[in-house]
Amino acid sequence: MTRTEQPVRAAGRPRSERAERAIVEATLDLLAAESGVAGVSIEAVAARAGVGKTTIYRRWPNKEALIVHALGEAKAPMVEPSGGSVRGDLLELARTIGAERQRKYARCFWNVVGGAEKHPELYARYRQDVIEPRREVIRGVLRRGVERGELRADLDLEIGVMMFVGTLANRTPQEPFPEGHAEAVVDTLLRGIGAPGA
Amino acid sequence: MTRTEQPVRAAGRPRSERAERAIVEATLDLLAAESGVAGVSIEAVAARAGVGKTTIYRRWPNKEALIVHALGEAKAPMVEPSGGSVRGDLLELARTIGAERQRKYARCFWNVVGGAEKHPELYARYRQDVIEPRREVIRGVLRRGVERGELRADLDLEIGVMMFVGTLANRTPQEPFPEGHAEAVVDTLLRGIGAPGA
Repeated sequence: MTRTEQPVRAAGRPRSERAERAIVEATLDLLAAESGVAGVSIEAVAARAGVGKTTIYRRWPNKEALIVHALGEAKAPMVEPSGGSVRGDLLELARTIGAERQRKYARCFWNVVGGAEKHPELYARYRQDVIEPRREVIRGVLRRGVERGELRADLDLEIGVMMFVGTLANRTPQEPFPEGHAEAVVDTLLRGIGAPGA
Repeated sequence: MTRTEQPVRAAGRPRSERAERAIVEATLDLLAAESGVAGVSIEAVAARAGVGKTTIYRRWPNKEALIVHALGEAKAPMVEPSGGSVRGDLLELARTIGAERQRKYARCFWNVVGGAEKHPELYARYRQDVIEPRREVIRGVLRRGVERGELRADLDLEIGVMMFVGTLANRTPQEPFPEGHAEAVVDTLLRGIGAPGA
């Protein structure tokens, strides 16, 4: 047994970090399966991660808290864009969202949103802890655009966020964006589909 | 036994229509459950509908054909809008889509799209037989708008369809549209979010 494989209860951190990583990955693997939220239980996560149930309960009071934590880990942080122009910022955000679509765990999010009716509290926590901070980054870009006169003064920020996120999401799951897609979406969003002066 | 409850093999139609309705409903009930596509089997549908498996196989060669047929039955037909103006037509379509969100079977569609990676052939048939005819109605409204000069001459029709459908879908599943939502989406889509001349 090498040094790193020894139980190191006192030093603790590396081992507990490995356990946490295994628990989060087991949760996401189970959540990505076809049974979705219904297939995740503390028992199943413990078995898959190779840890005892107590190790999980020490950190997360219940399955819902564990799932919301794991979903937060699976999303790339929505990095504040550079702030040069609204168009440039939206393109940066669109490319981040595009890259995420190809990640292994995209199906987890789908299952949680699809399970909203059956697991409303889990869905509400997911919205609040994982989705809302990301939407706030997008909202901030639009808000600054309105303030600087780049966007319409009467823009409804929520409609703007839905239009940006919803358009990018309206594709076959996990299919990568085609070349030029982010630009086409952002430019159509900015100019609108109506003829000028029509 | 009353007359209508008798087996009427020769006259046939009313009884076979009842059986078909029961089979379609059983399929949608199973598909709407958390296990989604994985929970639908000819055995389970037969048991739930109270018919023999042969009755199902007589009509549908396999589970995929049955699911695609049932999904087609569950969507309201996308009625060709009246054609007065693009704005009016898009509002009509948006209200149809909004009304559908509250239907019992919304979850079925979510499960089939979420299962795209696992059941790619089913997803492809669903896209082709159920979704594509609906998108073609929307595409037709946009195409006529371009021809009549109401929409930008350089509009990418596919981006336009994604923007319309995706924005409307970017809400909590089954949550009804708030008052004025269809108008806000259609008007933002037409005018764009960018300041005029910015």
